[in-house]
Amino acid sequence: MQYHVNGRLVPAEAATVSVEDRGFLYGDAAFETCRAYGGTVFEWDAHLSRLEGTCETLGMAGAVPDDLRDRIGATLDANGLSDAYVRVSVTRGVQPGKLTPATDVEPSVVVIVKPLPRGEDVWDGPADVRTVERRRIPESAMPADAKTHNYLDGILARLELRGTGADEALVRDVDGAVAEGATSNVFFVDDGTLKTPSLAGPILPGVTRAVVLDLAADLAIPVETGTYGVDAVRTADEAFLTNTTWEVRPIATVDGGAVGGGQVTDRLADAFDRRVEPLYDGSD
Amino acid sequence: MQYHVNGRLVPAEAATVSVEDRGFLYGDAAFETCRAYGGTVFEWDAHLSRLEGTCETLGMAGAVPDDLRDRIGATLDANGLSDAYVRVSVTRGVQPGKLTPATDVEPSVVVIVKPLPRGEDVWDGPADVRTVERRRIPESAMPADAKTHNYLDGILARLELRGTGADEALVRDVDGAVAEGATSNVFFVDDGTLKTPSLAGPILPGVTRAVVLDLAADLAIPVETGTYGVDAVRTADEAFLTNTTWEVRPIATVDGGAVGGGQVTDRLADAFDRRVEPLYDGSD
Repeated sequence: MQYHVNGRLVPAEAATVSVEDRGFLYGDAAFETCRAYGGTVFEWDAHLSRLEGTCETLGMAGAVPDDLRDRIGATLDANGLSDAYVRVSVTRGVQPGKLTPATDVEPSVVVIVKPLPRGEDVWDGPADVRTVERRRIPESAMPADAKTHNYLDGILARLELRGTGADEALVRDVDGAVAEGATSNVFFVDDGTLKTPSLAGPILPGVTRAVVLDLAADLAIPVETGTYGVDAVRTADEAFLTNTTWEVRPIATVDGGAVGGGQVTDRLADAFDRRVEPLYDGSD
Repeated sequence: MQYHVNGRLVPAEAATVSVEDRGFLYGDAAFETCRAYGGTVFEWDAHLSRLEGTCETLGMAGAVPDDLRDRIGATLDANGLSDAYVRVSVTRGVQPGKLTPATDVEPSVVVIVKPLPRGEDVWDGPADVRTVERRRIPESAMPADAKTHNYLDGILARLELRGTGADEALVRDVDGAVAEGATSNVFFVDDGTLKTPSLAGPILPGVTRAVVLDLAADLAIPVETGTYGVDAVRTADEAFLTNTTWEVRPIATVDGGAVGGGQVTDRLADAFDRRVEPLYDGSD
């Protein structure tokens, strides 16, 4: 494999950053996880926009290089990949001094790719989800719409799943409302209405979440965003998770109780497929 | 300069970690900032204990190598340093898979040193402190006693100081009580009593904080830990910050209003000096 580091393709084993890079020292970096279908980076504009927004939140507006999409393309080409997982990071780089960021930023820009074929599910099946004690960081402490290398909140949530057999955490906000999974947004269906926590809560505005809401509008599926307790998900007619890698992934169980996908989940998954399929024309 | 990376001394410019190291990808790492005086790492046992505690919180108990103190010694020696800043990081290393940590950990261990002579203040003078909007992450979302590479909370606090002239942020918890600085603990003196926020709040149990509380006991200075508003610091008779690099640093102003050090601050700073001086015997 070859990765792209600071403007150059390098063998994966030589793809490194300085131990003084702030992305390493402090997790002081923005990132996006994208997916390429047939060589096209799906929803690139949305990912780029969020990446730029995260950099702005971190006080380094303009750190995203203009040719970032080209760097991704070059990395996919170098590895002969058209269906792939793509992770793009923009860090504040190496700076003199300690914690306070300097205004002059020479970002480190890293593109990592992995083969991710479509057609075979990248997950082993529907998700077993378990409510964890770890809470989502409130907005006043960390802006939820920033996707950064500070990801311990999700890791600590996942650690609680050890030994339970569950593969995604159901994370609540500090008030006890359902927020999201460790790496996914949560949807459920109640009496034909598709429901998902509102972005008024501490919730990452997932790119796949937005696509699913768009598809639901296309399909005239009623949608409600709001504040929900765990019981609403546990007792839902259907439930599923979304993220870039999983796309639409049914939830088999919540805290051991069966929920499962269903008709609405299937319609959205099918509609998602139809949105991806044209990308295989190769017209990026 | 030479740094120590995964068991080997390497030139600083070649000191790197993989872009797939979880310390880089997610800030999935524990660290300590220490200070060497005359070749002795001050309060090493306390730093080691907190580092081990952080690794345990991160689900990688035992990741700290047994010879870590020797690695620091070798790094100081290689650079001819006896008075130095020392940063030690233990990451979860490179692992297969995505976010969920594997139980089998091959940590990356990094030691960075910088010259830090004593006698000249490493700060430019007493601190100008300003209350920021960014709040400290509550305990339910992130254990406050874990010192990790997820340091954006402090960085966002410092970013609010841009253009204000202040050099440390006064960070409150989500309920509005004073928590700490971005990289320091806060003390103030009220009518002869030394006060500092209690560890019941989301506050890093600073090593220098503990030393100062110990010195206050030695000096029979009355101490109170509790929950305080910003006004308590603003209207204090004296106030100061503590951390490993700053030791005891007086607060000149809070939100533009003068506070300053004073008799109690001076006594503690002098007692701190007396605790450090014997280390220059070279008996580590």
